[in-house]
Amino acid sequence: MLTLYYTAHTCSLASHIALLDAGATYELKRIDFGRTEQQSPAYLEINPKARVPAMVTPRGILTETPAILVFIAQSFPAARLAPMLDPFAFAEMQSFNSYLCSTLHVAHAHRMRGNRWADDPASFADMKRKVPQSVGACYELIERRLLKGPWVMGESYTVADPYLFTLAQWLEGDGVDPARIPRVMEHRSRMAERANVKQAITEELAD
Amino acid sequence: MLTLYYTAHTCSLASHIALLDAGATYELKRIDFGRTEQQSPAYLEINPKARVPAMVTPRGILTETPAILVFIAQSFPAARLAPMLDPFAFAEMQSFNSYLCSTLHVAHAHRMRGNRWADDPASFADMKRKVPQSVGACYELIERRLLKGPWVMGESYTVADPYLFTLAQWLEGDGVDPARIPRVMEHRSRMAERANVKQAITEELAD
Repeated sequence: MLTLYYTAHTCSLASHIALLDAGATYELKRIDFGRTEQQSPAYLEINPKARVPAMVTPRGILTETPAILVFIAQSFPAARLAPMLDPFAFAEMQSFNSYLCSTLHVAHAHRMRGNRWADDPASFADMKRKVPQSVGACYELIERRLLKGPWVMGESYTVADPYLFTLAQWLEGDGVDPARIPRVMEHRSRMAERANVKQAITEELAD
Repeated sequence: MLTLYYTAHTCSLASHIALLDAGATYELKRIDFGRTEQQSPAYLEINPKARVPAMVTPRGILTETPAILVFIAQSFPAARLAPMLDPFAFAEMQSFNSYLCSTLHVAHAHRMRGNRWADDPASFADMKRKVPQSVGACYELIERRLLKGPWVMGESYTVADPYLFTLAQWLEGDGVDPARIPRVMEHRSRMAERANVKQAITEELAD
């Protein structure tokens, strides 16, 4: 059994969708950011980083979306969610996921989490103003160079797909013009039609 | 043959050390940040992100340190640089590498690359002031919870080791007090004594 600690509207949705794609048996535990539950002593025991997702496995707890996604793919090989046996193809998928976590998600976080990196409200406002540009540049690179289509890695659906879909929920809020990234938007629409994606979103909002 | 595009004193050192650890045949190509060569049209053809590292392989170009490190480990299995066949152990290593790229390296980058996320010189100064705290918090988490010892993942050396060693070159410059993270410092010293680490640094400075 796997237990996913999640918060709706965060990047934990990617791991949730991947669990469904894998056919895994799992349970969900909601962490309420509204009550800053991620900083509670009980949750810090689970994840001292005070973030979601965290996933409890029979061997221990995992954090960081790129690691959790590949763990799910590797643990349920029949679902074929990552090209584990092809080092180059696997590295391309990992490179994409790494770009999402270290560049795209980080750029997005400067809209509302500026206090991670600065202290002055004027700095927060400055960071917030730049988000359409910094996040927009990430999406334009994805649009032009990284997204192979129809799925992120081409003909094969992988765990990179729920990850891109999850972060792409935020792009209008970040001030990115959808008209400039039609292939990203088409990918998002195609993902939104999948039964597992609908189920994951329904489970998170119903819990 | 693998070709690594690198710049001395950047995170590309991790991939360079891993290539030596793997026993790979490789060539180095230096990108001169002093002349902003990372933004030259020729280099943007290699890596449109205008960063290092980038690695040219017979099947295409790879970017992003966590992806390149695992590619090297998986391509040279005899060197045993990652627990590829143990999904949980592999995920723990990947989680560590993901934390380095998306949290530690990002916190560090606010010291000198503030223009990625803001525009006002006052914001850059504010960001710079917070680096000892934000980077310091990362190292304290690594010290207390993540670094198993003697190597990052415990008894087995993995590609997480050159990655931590590489970023740890910068901690004094970031204003982190080494006295508070003795296990990280001991790891750095142990790494610095390895022949492959010495060779990689020598090659980068001599080129």
